[in-house]
Amino acid sequence: MKKSLLKNLTAEPGRAYSTSDFNPSYTAHWSKKEGEDHLAESIKSMRQLQDKLYASDKHSILIIFQAMDAAGKDGTIEHVMTGINPVGCQVFSFKQPSYEELDHDYLWRIYKNLPEQGRIGIFNRSHYEEVIVTKVHPELLLKEKLVGISSVSDIDETFWLQRYRQINDFERYLTETGTVVIKFFLNVSRHEQHRRFRDRLTDESANWKFSLADVRESEYWDAYQSAYSDMLTHTSTSHAPWYVIPADHKWFMRAVVAGIICERMEALGLHYPELTEQQQADLKQAMKEIDDKQI
Amino acid sequence: MKKSLLKNLTAEPGRAYSTSDFNPSYTAHWSKKEGEDHLAESIKSMRQLQDKLYASDKHSILIIFQAMDAAGKDGTIEHVMTGINPVGCQVFSFKQPSYEELDHDYLWRIYKNLPEQGRIGIFNRSHYEEVIVTKVHPELLLKEKLVGISSVSDIDETFWLQRYRQINDFERYLTETGTVVIKFFLNVSRHEQHRRFRDRLTDESANWKFSLADVRESEYWDAYQSAYSDMLTHTSTSHAPWYVIPADHKWFMRAVVAGIICERMEALGLHYPELTEQQQADLKQAMKEIDDKQI
Repeated sequence: MKKSLLKNLTAEPGRAYSTSDFNPSYTAHWSKKEGEDHLAESIKSMRQLQDKLYASDKHSILIIFQAMDAAGKDGTIEHVMTGINPVGCQVFSFKQPSYEELDHDYLWRIYKNLPEQGRIGIFNRSHYEEVIVTKVHPELLLKEKLVGISSVSDIDETFWLQRYRQINDFERYLTETGTVVIKFFLNVSRHEQHRRFRDRLTDESANWKFSLADVRESEYWDAYQSAYSDMLTHTSTSHAPWYVIPADHKWFMRAVVAGIICERMEALGLHYPELTEQQQADLKQAMKEIDDKQI
Repeated sequence: MKKSLLKNLTAEPGRAYSTSDFNPSYTAHWSKKEGEDHLAESIKSMRQLQDKLYASDKHSILIIFQAMDAAGKDGTIEHVMTGINPVGCQVFSFKQPSYEELDHDYLWRIYKNLPEQGRIGIFNRSHYEEVIVTKVHPELLLKEKLVGISSVSDIDETFWLQRYRQINDFERYLTETGTVVIKFFLNVSRHEQHRRFRDRLTDESANWKFSLADVRESEYWDAYQSAYSDMLTHTSTSHAPWYVIPADHKWFMRAVVAGIICERMEALGLHYPELTEQQQADLKQAMKEIDDKQI
């Protein structure tokens, strides 16, 4: 992937952002065919990289997807990751927290589902909901029974800045202990979101996942965009920057998501573990012993 | 898949078996090309079936692989499942139990890793190790700190018959509560196992997963075959029969494994959930409201 393209898609750490700084229908002048070729090529490299990741069993990859409804989280995960060996890949979809989860700190359920060493973990939604949906609907925070928060009016700017810092600290720790954290914000336009809602009404293989709640929630568009803007401003860090992926063209979104994952994995310099000379000699000796028994 | 072929590969419940009743190099007179075509076709159907399984969110599929080392568990899982959307598929490889796991009953760690509704869970090894490796090396059972077992001499036929019954009861419960249990014993010949060991010595992308322990363990061949024979005899049930898959030809093994998974999934009669008329009307109304606001 060209450096200039990657730069265009990255929220630079330490800068103030609005989601409107990014164009949801950007395609880098690629044709659809070029995008599909890039995707196929990236999936091929990813399979090889994943095999080495699994074999070397040191690093793990955490891929986070955040987006408005219908931006294409499910479809992107499906199209980018379906060529991957499921042994080394796990997907978690975070839904509304359960009572058990609400009885713990908000990173508890995230911790529980982090990928093991050698594996790729994909989060469909994540701890970022804790600064997105809760920012749009602050009454949800009251369910978390937080120290010092007894009504919505207790939730001020200091509270949010603390959460951003906690999340940054958490991701820095993950990075330092061997996890590569890759964060995608799939940036869809309101017009395209609405077009996709309309499509879902008529597509029998999709309309089961379409709910009245999704449509109603889209009325909070501006509040969500504001929360995402704050997220980009405060949680794009040098160890875990946000990639803002233009989502109005699915083929482009899928190609650049796959391209970025490959780039970040390639940067690890992965290779198969090598047997020591002693191990090789032991194995040859053991094989010889079996041969001698003429099995 | 032809009924006669499926019958040849199924251990009939209630019959006494020896692994030697099954031919590891059987290929049903298929050519390699035919096998590969069957595999590609099955993967295609499996993707569609999986999408409906996920959408309908009622059943889950538990696929168990048991085999001697080098029979092809890893490769079969990779080749059969790589075309599958990882959102709906999870693989667990059971290794030696941890201290925490040993401090619970032997099904505890199995329960924890069962697939959620709507998903395919794949077990690379499983609770069957509890009647396989422990039968070959009964001293391992002492680590489980079992009631009434204080030395190897306490482990008698009654003990094993109780374990088989417990496993059958467990799987019947899973079946009754919506899980389809599909059990594959990949049946490799000793000659072919040894040939694959030798290959691993020279293949740098494979030799990291080859250990002296594997070679040494292969010296217990007869004891393992005997344990597998008992497993087929006592735990092939009408709700969860064992499929004994000829494993000397990888292409055949992969094709029939994929074929059997498809057959078992097709038997569920899966379909996408349908929105009720009221739900459809509500959605249309909500869309209209948004349209009226001219977004």
